[in-house]
Amino acid sequence: MISYSRGKGNLENWVVSEELFQPDSLGKSEAIMYLGNGYMGLRSAAEEPYMKEVRNLFANGTFNKAGENEVTELPNIADVTRLDIRIDGDRFSLEFGKTKEYIKQLNIKTAELMRSFVWTSPKGKVLQFEFKRFVSLDNLHLIGMKMFVKSLTDPVHISFDTGIDAQMSNSGAQHFLEGERRIFDKKDIQLIQTTRESKIDVVISSTHKVFVNDVESINEPEMNMARRKVWLTYNIKLEPNDRLEVEKLTTVYTSRDNDLDFTEYTTRHLREKSLSDLRNCAIKGYESNFQLHKEAWNNLIWSSYELEINSENPYDLLALRFSLYHLTIMAPAHDDRMGIAAKGLSGEGYKGHSFWDTEIFILPFFTFSNPAVAKSLLTYRYFCLEGARKKARENGFSGAMFPWESAWPPDGEVTPNLGDIDIVTGEPTKIWSGFIEQHISADIAFAIYQYFNVTADQEFMNHYGYEVIFDTANFWVSRLEWNEGKQAYHINNVIGPDEYKEHVNNNAFTNYMVFFNMKLAIRYYETLMKEKPSILKKLITKFDMNKAYSLWKAKVGKIYLPQPRAEDFVIPQDDTYLTLKEIDLTKYKNQKKLRTIYRDYNSEQINAIQVTKQADILLMLYLLNQTFISEAVPLSNAVKEANFYYYERKTLHDSSLSLSTHSILASEIGDTDLAYSLFRKATEVDLGPRMDTSDEGIHAASIGGIWKATVFGFAGVRVVDGKLRINPKLPKQWRHLKFKIHWQGQPITLVLSHTTFSIKVENKKKIEFELNNHIYECDDVLNIDFEYING
Amino acid sequence: MISYSRGKGNLENWVVSEELFQPDSLGKSEAIMYLGNGYMGLRSAAEEPYMKEVRNLFANGTFNKAGENEVTELPNIADVTRLDIRIDGDRFSLEFGKTKEYIKQLNIKTAELMRSFVWTSPKGKVLQFEFKRFVSLDNLHLIGMKMFVKSLTDPVHISFDTGIDAQMSNSGAQHFLEGERRIFDKKDIQLIQTTRESKIDVVISSTHKVFVNDVESINEPEMNMARRKVWLTYNIKLEPNDRLEVEKLTTVYTSRDNDLDFTEYTTRHLREKSLSDLRNCAIKGYESNFQLHKEAWNNLIWSSYELEINSENPYDLLALRFSLYHLTIMAPAHDDRMGIAAKGLSGEGYKGHSFWDTEIFILPFFTFSNPAVAKSLLTYRYFCLEGARKKARENGFSGAMFPWESAWPPDGEVTPNLGDIDIVTGEPTKIWSGFIEQHISADIAFAIYQYFNVTADQEFMNHYGYEVIFDTANFWVSRLEWNEGKQAYHINNVIGPDEYKEHVNNNAFTNYMVFFNMKLAIRYYETLMKEKPSILKKLITKFDMNKAYSLWKAKVGKIYLPQPRAEDFVIPQDDTYLTLKEIDLTKYKNQKKLRTIYRDYNSEQINAIQVTKQADILLMLYLLNQTFISEAVPLSNAVKEANFYYYERKTLHDSSLSLSTHSILASEIGDTDLAYSLFRKATEVDLGPRMDTSDEGIHAASIGGIWKATVFGFAGVRVVDGKLRINPKLPKQWRHLKFKIHWQGQPITLVLSHTTFSIKVENKKKIEFELNNHIYECDDVLNIDFEYING
Repeated sequence: MISYSRGKGNLENWVVSEELFQPDSLGKSEAIMYLGNGYMGLRSAAEEPYMKEVRNLFANGTFNKAGENEVTELPNIADVTRLDIRIDGDRFSLEFGKTKEYIKQLNIKTAELMRSFVWTSPKGKVLQFEFKRFVSLDNLHLIGMKMFVKSLTDPVHISFDTGIDAQMSNSGAQHFLEGERRIFDKKDIQLIQTTRESKIDVVISSTHKVFVNDVESINEPEMNMARRKVWLTYNIKLEPNDRLEVEKLTTVYTSRDNDLDFTEYTTRHLREKSLSDLRNCAIKGYESNFQLHKEAWNNLIWSSYELEINSENPYDLLALRFSLYHLTIMAPAHDDRMGIAAKGLSGEGYKGHSFWDTEIFILPFFTFSNPAVAKSLLTYRYFCLEGARKKARENGFSGAMFPWESAWPPDGEVTPNLGDIDIVTGEPTKIWSGFIEQHISADIAFAIYQYFNVTADQEFMNHYGYEVIFDTANFWVSRLEWNEGKQAYHINNVIGPDEYKEHVNNNAFTNYMVFFNMKLAIRYYETLMKEKPSILKKLITKFDMNKAYSLWKAKVGKIYLPQPRAEDFVIPQDDTYLTLKEIDLTKYKNQKKLRTIYRDYNSEQINAIQVTKQADILLMLYLLNQTFISEAVPLSNAVKEANFYYYERKTLHDSSLSLSTHSILASEIGDTDLAYSLFRKATEVDLGPRMDTSDEGIHAASIGGIWKATVFGFAGVRVVDGKLRINPKLPKQWRHLKFKIHWQGQPITLVLSHTTFSIKVENKKKIEFELNNHIYECDDVLNIDFEYING
Repeated sequence: MISYSRGKGNLENWVVSEELFQPDSLGKSEAIMYLGNGYMGLRSAAEEPYMKEVRNLFANGTFNKAGENEVTELPNIADVTRLDIRIDGDRFSLEFGKTKEYIKQLNIKTAELMRSFVWTSPKGKVLQFEFKRFVSLDNLHLIGMKMFVKSLTDPVHISFDTGIDAQMSNSGAQHFLEGERRIFDKKDIQLIQTTRESKIDVVISSTHKVFVNDVESINEPEMNMARRKVWLTYNIKLEPNDRLEVEKLTTVYTSRDNDLDFTEYTTRHLREKSLSDLRNCAIKGYESNFQLHKEAWNNLIWSSYELEINSENPYDLLALRFSLYHLTIMAPAHDDRMGIAAKGLSGEGYKGHSFWDTEIFILPFFTFSNPAVAKSLLTYRYFCLEGARKKARENGFSGAMFPWESAWPPDGEVTPNLGDIDIVTGEPTKIWSGFIEQHISADIAFAIYQYFNVTADQEFMNHYGYEVIFDTANFWVSRLEWNEGKQAYHINNVIGPDEYKEHVNNNAFTNYMVFFNMKLAIRYYETLMKEKPSILKKLITKFDMNKAYSLWKAKVGKIYLPQPRAEDFVIPQDDTYLTLKEIDLTKYKNQKKLRTIYRDYNSEQINAIQVTKQADILLMLYLLNQTFISEAVPLSNAVKEANFYYYERKTLHDSSLSLSTHSILASEIGDTDLAYSLFRKATEVDLGPRMDTSDEGIHAASIGGIWKATVFGFAGVRVVDGKLRINPKLPKQWRHLKFKIHWQGQPITLVLSHTTFSIKVENKKKIEFELNNHIYECDDVLNIDFEYING
């Protein structure tokens, strides 16, 4: 039971609420309401424990391999949020007694979790509870928690255990070697542990303040320790209407942090840092720390992005804010050695690894809205080059073959080789994506191209960008397969974006993206040769630039680029797709659950049907449209429409990456109603009412897609070969849309309605843009009336 | 709420029952009702999960180090007993709804766990549940489980998950590398994993049968896998009075097993063995497997030990049977590379390590009742010699210095170096016992001496026994410290059995036991020199026998042996004990909880008070009384009495090892009422009504002590320097006592009452024994009337 309309007044459309406690459906609110700040992510499990809870705390970048045969993953650090509460000696749980007025809320504006209810104990005592929690955006190391309890009817004895519990694991995989536990001054607790293989120290420190009727309690708690655990037990007697208030502040530090100011790292320094930071925070107190956090959210996020939607469905604005909230907390803006995980920092799913999801679905938001973060994320890919080269070598190729899944940069490919055992044959299933889902290298090249076009960040290109584009082109050169019969370069045995088709030849998406990647390399090489040959020279230590260039030139023109069928303009997704059996997919498209097709067909059978898991050809059309190779590609409206309707019918959207692309394409071809309906579905991947969608974590790419479908789809913003183009296609439900993007280093604010367009150029540097096929210039504010110009 | 009188008819005094389900007190019945067979131990957690449960399955000997800074421990293998049951979709738990007629029972006779109740769901449906479980003594690899459910009032939809869950850990320490999970034929599930450091493969396989009204269900279960987990989900519809019956059989195999019949070990062989054994068991079905198990218990245990007590407190017989039950399931009778853990196989406490507990408190039962197991346990110590020699070398000594804590024989000392952090100073506390609690080497020598005296197993001595005795004597030679002033050998800076006194000099227990150990070596050497010099010669590869002998001879006479004080015959426990402050200990002796003295004093203060944790001087008197050095020791009744009353007043029995020794001594000095009261307290360490005594596991030494207090105390059986002596001191509550011991390879059955004594010599080989200072001979049956002979 998720509701969207509980925020009132200045919190309207800022609040996601769970209105019913369901002990069998805990994952939803734990994941979609998780707290974080890019440095760490804290899953929003309840304070009191439940059987089916998943209690996660992740610190970005702290990857570790749990065992020899396992791939590296983000360890579940420890729990600091659990409170074992006893009321008159009996365990408190919402599974007992009676609960009224239950509400659990994520306040997106203040990035605060709140939970409250009135609870009648099995013995008939009535208590009012409220819990609050935040993970500071002001001090990335800080977690704040607060509990209020009021006894409404009876004297009551409340006791609770609160501490640091490192008995946690990743579904049984323990990443940490046990370390020291300490209690300082009978109140500050600390736990140190070290990852087993990567040897990262993690120090967690917590401190408490307890108030009864606003008077700080001086009762000393009981001090307890067990293996991998340290905790305090408080015992409080409340008279009717007495008000208990407990504040807990926790700091998390790791030896991987890039903000440590010691000249030489030692664990002792880290523990002292952690403790001194904790004590400084404690002096300020919970409320002041929370104020600083709130201001950070306001200044860095909400004031900065200036997003507004006036929709007849207020949910839409909430969904966009939800998207921005999650994009903020998932991104390690503080450290360019870290990427964004497919589940953000909200769950164990996909082990904290980064996929192409970042570049194609998430990065565009940052490139347009917060280029510094985009730069950091692309710099991460630059640091991954070493692993990409290693992967290329190991697979018999040259250049940089980017890992399908990435973790800590030097790790290289971290996709597991084997998946779950096929429960019928008993054999482990091979995971092919780490070997043959190769388009990611071109996707990264595309993302750098897009970043450079939008930001004009030449320095990034000089240091990082060119090298990635050149060396991915080098990879493709070695990857192309000469087909003597066709006198063309083919790319065989790949998986394209549509993962329902494994081991295909000439996946159109892949071939076109490779073509683009190599063309881009050639183009940049030629420009640099003319304008900045020193940049090229520097790269000579990495590979032979001249030879590379001549190979790109020699091969790029002969890459096989599948063309639309004459009869219906449909571009074949791969060599065989259009020859496969067609079946009636209505049933699977209308079902509420994903992947229901597996109930009737197994993987092999699905491979032989014209059915697509997720956007593939359509994604290609969307991406290529933004490039300078659009002439080499059939991108007429007729082709777009033909392919959209052909493939949309075949696409089950069984991947969370799919809907937003289809929404954008639907906007592009003018089917705004369908675009809006697809957008709504995309927002519902996590935010929707289904209670089991997000158990393993939120869908970061889908969340990026919400913003994309809005700005690229409805606002029609596009950068095409370096030129800003805006073709708004506002859905009829939306009255106006306001957002801010960064264009060539300058923030510009756009306000759209069905009849008007306004642009404000913040730094008053003149820009040029195309709006509905008219070219405009602006160096301040420009208001345009569509009816006037079109009429 | 533990009750002792629920067994009726032929189950009278065979059943331990828990009559109230208390979700906060789960540990008691989990531990004291745990199931096992020496090969493995299965903690008796409920099928449906609870927050505070501890779900353990241990396989003896599968030691592994979880991390570099940790000591090796027995890993918690996996869970196979948990059933996640849903009634009409809602989680079943006794914390919800209403429970009537709850009972959880350990049937000691059949070594079977049973739990039953009538449960009314929150929706008002009434169901009858019964669960049964056994760990087979017939097939050591087999676990059987059964669930009955009957819907009494309504149609009901019951579904349950049942599988193998290897997400378990030892309080967060994960010992296993993840392995394969399989499902065979859509019903047999299997999970393989390998210990991280010791590389032991563990294969667990389970199969199910489901019956409704005795008809086997052919519905296929849902098949599920997750990380380190594989499980099946069954969905059953029951009409009122329908009866669901589920059987689950599980086999456990490890690569450490000594009963594998492959010529060459491979994991594949092991998994096939595990599966084929499972399938053979499945063909027999649950009931037949249970019958075989029951027969094994009857034949190997109950018929063999022939224990009977007629007491006015029937509980006493139950307690003895409880003792025999636990002694059976804790002992790895199948494998002489394994010892007995201080908590048996019932919990994580003490990490599965073996202490002196085995030799002094547990082994006597086996030596007298089942010498084959005693031999296996002493052979384990022989295999530990390598580690003992290593420990001696590392500590700057010669010979064999046995580890205070032992695990896998080559591991040597495995006592942790550091304990919990002192919560006040924040510093970790040093655990000294691994360094200075040294008497264990002499304790082992004593146990071998006792074993040889009782069994006359010359072959064991030739192969194993002599070497241990000689090389422990060698250790002591190197350990003795010459005191120039006193012109005597001292042993300084030790911990004796009384662990409330650390770093003492000349702990009487230690000095006397060392004296005995060296005397014994001399004696055996001299006998062998005369009778079997070849045995001595064989040992020359290990150490210089002649030199060793001359050193023993040269030093043994100069060992300082503390003498009784002239004024009151009290033997000083160590050099300073009798000079320490005396305080009123009444308060601590009368409290129900252990170690309450720590509420008023810290360790350092306790070290300076005349207070004793556990039997020390009294244990010494009891042990030395059985040896040939009794002339060198003051062992008159006056000395015994003086020391008993002196030290009993100072002893808090804060160790579970203490009470049985005091009970024996009380018997010995004729204070039978006190002996009986101490015996009762000893039985209550685990079996008593306090619900938190056994959370971390049962107390193996205390359980051995129950038998000792009976046979050595009340029956007054003793072997003194090779001669069997019986001085019965039956408590007035007991009308008769019957038990069987093995004497010189021959079973003899003893029946005692206050007025009669009867002995039956099974193999009709003539034996000699002393009864109440009269010498008797017997080669068949002898009945003696005390009143007649004394009158």
